[in-house]
Amino acid sequence: MPDALRVGMAGLGTVGVGVLRLLESNRDLVRARAGRGIEVVAVSARDRSKDRGVDLSRVRWADSLAELASDEDCDIVVELIGGAEGDALDLARAALSQGRGLVTANKALIAHHGLEMARLAEENAAPLKFEAAVAGGIPVVAGLREGAAANAIERIYGILNGTSNYVLSEMEASGADFGDVLADAQAMGYAEADPAFDVDGTDAAHKLAILAAIGFGSRIDFDAVSVSGIAEVRAADIAHARTLGFVIRLVGVADCEDGPEGARLLQRVRPCLVPKQHPLAHVTGPTNAVVAEGDFAGRLLFQGAGAGAGPTASAVVADLIDIARGRTGHPFSLPVDSLVAMERADPGHRVGRDYIRFTVADRPGVLAEITAAMRDAGVSIESLIQQGRAQDGNGVLVAMVTHEGEERCVRHALELLEDSDSLTAAPLVLPILRD
Amino acid sequence: MPDALRVGMAGLGTVGVGVLRLLESNRDLVRARAGRGIEVVAVSARDRSKDRGVDLSRVRWADSLAELASDEDCDIVVELIGGAEGDALDLARAALSQGRGLVTANKALIAHHGLEMARLAEENAAPLKFEAAVAGGIPVVAGLREGAAANAIERIYGILNGTSNYVLSEMEASGADFGDVLADAQAMGYAEADPAFDVDGTDAAHKLAILAAIGFGSRIDFDAVSVSGIAEVRAADIAHARTLGFVIRLVGVADCEDGPEGARLLQRVRPCLVPKQHPLAHVTGPTNAVVAEGDFAGRLLFQGAGAGAGPTASAVVADLIDIARGRTGHPFSLPVDSLVAMERADPGHRVGRDYIRFTVADRPGVLAEITAAMRDAGVSIESLIQQGRAQDGNGVLVAMVTHEGEERCVRHALELLEDSDSLTAAPLVLPILRD
Repeated sequence: MPDALRVGMAGLGTVGVGVLRLLESNRDLVRARAGRGIEVVAVSARDRSKDRGVDLSRVRWADSLAELASDEDCDIVVELIGGAEGDALDLARAALSQGRGLVTANKALIAHHGLEMARLAEENAAPLKFEAAVAGGIPVVAGLREGAAANAIERIYGILNGTSNYVLSEMEASGADFGDVLADAQAMGYAEADPAFDVDGTDAAHKLAILAAIGFGSRIDFDAVSVSGIAEVRAADIAHARTLGFVIRLVGVADCEDGPEGARLLQRVRPCLVPKQHPLAHVTGPTNAVVAEGDFAGRLLFQGAGAGAGPTASAVVADLIDIARGRTGHPFSLPVDSLVAMERADPGHRVGRDYIRFTVADRPGVLAEITAAMRDAGVSIESLIQQGRAQDGNGVLVAMVTHEGEERCVRHALELLEDSDSLTAAPLVLPILRD
Repeated sequence: MPDALRVGMAGLGTVGVGVLRLLESNRDLVRARAGRGIEVVAVSARDRSKDRGVDLSRVRWADSLAELASDEDCDIVVELIGGAEGDALDLARAALSQGRGLVTANKALIAHHGLEMARLAEENAAPLKFEAAVAGGIPVVAGLREGAAANAIERIYGILNGTSNYVLSEMEASGADFGDVLADAQAMGYAEADPAFDVDGTDAAHKLAILAAIGFGSRIDFDAVSVSGIAEVRAADIAHARTLGFVIRLVGVADCEDGPEGARLLQRVRPCLVPKQHPLAHVTGPTNAVVAEGDFAGRLLFQGAGAGAGPTASAVVADLIDIARGRTGHPFSLPVDSLVAMERADPGHRVGRDYIRFTVADRPGVLAEITAAMRDAGVSIESLIQQGRAQDGNGVLVAMVTHEGEERCVRHALELLEDSDSLTAAPLVLPILRD
């Protein structure tokens, strides 16, 4: 059997400890499947004295990340520090530049610097893998890169953030409002003390940008992802959606649109109304699910735990096994120079249906004003719900679902209503996910 | 760019034509992802004159399968003939023995002869891949072999036959009985003229045996799969299940049980009652879904089209791209000599719940007799439904769901009732899938 693959690990938080536990507990199995051992020979973490419940006696402590990155005894650096910039970025650059492979669970790093990382990897013939960066333990990076490799991918979408999905499905189950459910989720450990990146859609956007780049063979373009989070979704919206046959989920959608000047990319993370019969409607709790639509394979669904020490460690070690076996390939499925810089699509001409919720003053004529604006903008209303007062006592909620129409029409209708003093709060528009 | 991977294809049915169409329509994309072209240079099929709607002008026709297997111009043979024995087996043996790689969609061949094939591949350093043999376009072989490689897999189960699933979900939607729905399915092309292997569970058993061997690192043991099909499921069973909060699905389950003398394997394909909140309950129509439970990754679900020309071609070409890239590895994830010959588990001691449907004579005392047998065998009844007469007028249906108990108790209860003339037909036992 060849020599073991020697790993230097940066970061010993829950995921780092999970990787050590996995390599210990499944040692024989990993060796058999990798064709050689996988050994963590060096680590770097802030606090050396902390008891992490794993045996570190045979592991060398690197005094700095720079030392780890240039450690001749390491074939691969596993980066579990997190963050798009700073230490993680410095380490990744240093490791790849010196020809050391990089395995990372860091979605922010790849979303922001994936192209640079892939280029460094290519120039230095160093493997770069990041299965753990997208959807935790679900092998969706490999599923897209290899499993669906024969397909032109037309659309990738999914539930990419476990915390938001937990919050939305709890709101659905309990009827409680966003703030209360989030506080409970934090108390129970399903949401971080600072849940901003989870509930504002940023985390899902990181993952979506990575998936889109792999699926479409394009240069990663995180800045092009349009993002809205779930903080504006009220219990009343979930109730309205239910009445209309939908649930609400935070969905990231990447579309590859054909246009006269080549393909254009549209990437959006938004709370959506999902038809109850759609596979994503049944995804509850802190679960992730990704759908890729291929021109030959059809609709492929990958679902599982999107976070947590065990699932993330499973993905990190799957990458290490691939590297140990020599199964590397291009990080984004194509050589860097073949990755296309896709134009951004203008969503205005896209055809779809929307749920629109208005908070309005409780007085005659308001509904006439709204429906007139819809008519003037060419928006056709399929159904309308007016139910009770807004929770804060500051108006009445009116919700509607539009017929299929161009998105710019809805945008125009809202512009017409922008200065109306009938609206006591900004309207909320939630797209309806295509079935 | 290196030379193209040269393929000889045996069989030009719908899947073969699908592969040719895919390679034509996604030529550039496949070349980019494979790092080289993939060219079908020779074919062998029964009827040379038939118009298949694809251009075969630049493809050589092999006069025999033996000629194809020994064609020095082919790197890889794609076997799309089907059947566990005969031509397909001869071709596979001949190709691998001569060091030619084999890509096959033939589940029967791999289920029956997978170990021999893997050994031949190993001895002759020839790649062997069969993603298309399991669950059509869903990359579940790769998902288990590579994506979940870091995990000890404890359980693999799923909906592995699209025809049965279509029939059962149509029975559910329409309330019609098995025979009527099957006839419709045949008329609509969702079921073959001879649907025996689909509805009797054999096809699902082939796939289950392959998945179990990969997941557990065991020697494939198709003969050990216990199989029952869906022909005995009546509309009344589906109605009863619905009342109790379940749907009925044909589910293949492979369990790796720890025992005092090592791990034991239990493989069964049976119609099961699936709780309505379980992901498999939402799988309708001709769809496949596979769940793998890993010790670190948790529950992974892979779902998609389980058959059809496009999805199957997608899987065949994914295998070809992997081979073109040099990503081969062991067909069953481990070297053949490391694959364990697992003992077969005795299901009798397993704990679970069952749905049991009796067809009984319409006279006093029958229920007392049945419930007494249950009591004597130690089976505890959780709920009981007695609803109307059997469809054929030949008795009354009594259905019950048991509390958790050992399987051998239910078996014993049925033995106690075996000679009873209160039962006018054999009882049907459907296990309840663990949530």
